[in-house]
Amino acid sequence: MTASPPERIPIGGGPSESTAWVGAGLLREAGEYLASPSGRFFLVWVPSAAAAVEPIRRALAGRLLLDLAIEDGESAKTLDTVARIADAALAAGVRRDDAFVAVGGGVVTDMVGFAAAVLLRGVAWNAVPTTTAGMADAAIGGKTGVNHRLGKNLLGAYHAPAAILVDPAAAATLPDRDYRAGLVEAYKDAWIGDAPLAARAARRLPQILAREEAPLLDLLAGSVRVKAEIVTSDPQDSGRRRLLNFGHTLGHAVEAAGEFGRLRHGEAVAWGIAAALEISRARAGLPEADAAAVRAVLAALGPFPPPERDGARLAPFLARDKKSTARGLASVLLAEIGRAVVDETVPPEEWLAAAAIMSLS
Amino acid sequence: MTASPPERIPIGGGPSESTAWVGAGLLREAGEYLASPSGRFFLVWVPSAAAAVEPIRRALAGRLLLDLAIEDGESAKTLDTVARIADAALAAGVRRDDAFVAVGGGVVTDMVGFAAAVLLRGVAWNAVPTTTAGMADAAIGGKTGVNHRLGKNLLGAYHAPAAILVDPAAAATLPDRDYRAGLVEAYKDAWIGDAPLAARAARRLPQILAREEAPLLDLLAGSVRVKAEIVTSDPQDSGRRRLLNFGHTLGHAVEAAGEFGRLRHGEAVAWGIAAALEISRARAGLPEADAAAVRAVLAALGPFPPPERDGARLAPFLARDKKSTARGLASVLLAEIGRAVVDETVPPEEWLAAAAIMSLS
Repeated sequence: MTASPPERIPIGGGPSESTAWVGAGLLREAGEYLASPSGRFFLVWVPSAAAAVEPIRRALAGRLLLDLAIEDGESAKTLDTVARIADAALAAGVRRDDAFVAVGGGVVTDMVGFAAAVLLRGVAWNAVPTTTAGMADAAIGGKTGVNHRLGKNLLGAYHAPAAILVDPAAAATLPDRDYRAGLVEAYKDAWIGDAPLAARAARRLPQILAREEAPLLDLLAGSVRVKAEIVTSDPQDSGRRRLLNFGHTLGHAVEAAGEFGRLRHGEAVAWGIAAALEISRARAGLPEADAAAVRAVLAALGPFPPPERDGARLAPFLARDKKSTARGLASVLLAEIGRAVVDETVPPEEWLAAAAIMSLS
Repeated sequence: MTASPPERIPIGGGPSESTAWVGAGLLREAGEYLASPSGRFFLVWVPSAAAAVEPIRRALAGRLLLDLAIEDGESAKTLDTVARIADAALAAGVRRDDAFVAVGGGVVTDMVGFAAAVLLRGVAWNAVPTTTAGMADAAIGGKTGVNHRLGKNLLGAYHAPAAILVDPAAAATLPDRDYRAGLVEAYKDAWIGDAPLAARAARRLPQILAREEAPLLDLLAGSVRVKAEIVTSDPQDSGRRRLLNFGHTLGHAVEAAGEFGRLRHGEAVAWGIAAALEISRARAGLPEADAAAVRAVLAALGPFPPPERDGARLAPFLARDKKSTARGLASVLLAEIGRAVVDETVPPEEWLAAAAIMSLS
């Protein structure tokens, strides 16, 4: 039983609408919230998420046609793993009206979502994130994909999950470093779109770090609401949705240049935000008080391992960013806490200069 | 120079609109009709299409960032080949606003379209079919994909090409067997949606088999028009678009059960149509005169190699059809020449019974 009914947050609209459910105790009631046109489910999970898988398996008893464990981690996030998922599902007789359930972090939801996108040219899927990063970021907006030796997420598809279940209990066994890194994305959403939430969550940062349920649910639900509003207003990813990439332009480069795995994604984004604060001060009029408030939260979520700062090593990964066009790097800047803007005229050099001086203390 | 300007046929609408251009002499003017937001092109072709590639390469001189030959044939139509195309494009620095050009038969356009769909979560592409099958069928409607050991086209995406260039000259060196097999799909479009075209093309079958330009262009343009009308009226592939699968339910099974490559796709579809005629007579009131007229055209396009008729061997491939749901096999039947209908209640057994007795003489 949940103490109170979960919050229902619709994302997108039309044929690609997702429904996010946010609440404590959702896992045990997964059978009521996971969606499948046929009523049949294909479960894919990672060993680290085993504790969250158990109640879901019970909830879907008799309706599971596949129960597949896959390897976790950025290095396993490849087209080969997607092919393995597809092979297993086809061998199990997957039909167009069946649905996947992905249980794990962003790596798993990205891969299962991608497999669902290309199997039979598209079957439904559900996301049950078991990391704070996954709860705040993955799946929402429908971005799925895998890495390539030349960069992250270079292969993928837009394929929104039918349902996303966010239950803080699913992250109960998450190591502290991952727990903190994942929260960077949740705070990021508050900074780009919800100033009152940002203030509230900054004030309750100690309780959130202590994993207290109420303030954590408030931050996660608020983060999902910000994303839902932005994604719904820009279904084609043609403009506003880029705001969600705040911290990601340099973040991706820092992560890739440092070799996948050394920095957590959220940690790299934290450094990317630190660099974006520098550029936002110069180009978007971000008040120093706001920049200091963001830095203080990031410092408390850390300390994070030092990033790659060498421009010569970062530059190739900046140029290969998916958002680069002939016009330059589409960059997200902060005008004030709660309001982000896109600036398409930031040359890569400016990001490299910011990388050299960015600071989280 | 073209003798006359090409016919422009818009397909679909909104963000996924394609434009088909149909005319003689288009290849030489490819630079004017192929679409790329950045003006940069990534050319992928098969050796058998070399003659058609040459004028396109000249037309795109200075704008080509990739010029890649890949292997042809159903056995090369795999996720591995798509990964090779993606690798080459990423190594060449592909950006989100670039575009592919696929030159070859349906295998090539299916794979390049799929690669374009998943690269950077979607870049533009163009189709230049060099087979009658490709001109009549592939790319239109945006279906892309690859085969899997368990069946054809089990992995793929919907990703419509920006432009499709149909120039009969591109098929000049096509072997006669392929030329004839490909025409099955063109006639099929006439049968499901354009009775006057079907009558005209039946009358001029000898000239079309002799590759006379005017009647061939008439059939190909008419076939594209029928497809365009159907696809545009059903962008989500939720109902009417299934009409295009006339002959494909059993056709796919015949093709797969006989091992890929022994029967041409069009030949398998011809047998699938022969079976569908039997069921259409019983279930959709198809007049025997219409069935005979269709059979006569198919007989003249053949003779085709004998198909697999063994129900035990066909059954597994019927059940794995993408269009199968809990309700049964969604089957396309012919009510009369020019009008097809979908019947969702045809049990697999009925198809197997029709396979045992179908005839093209």
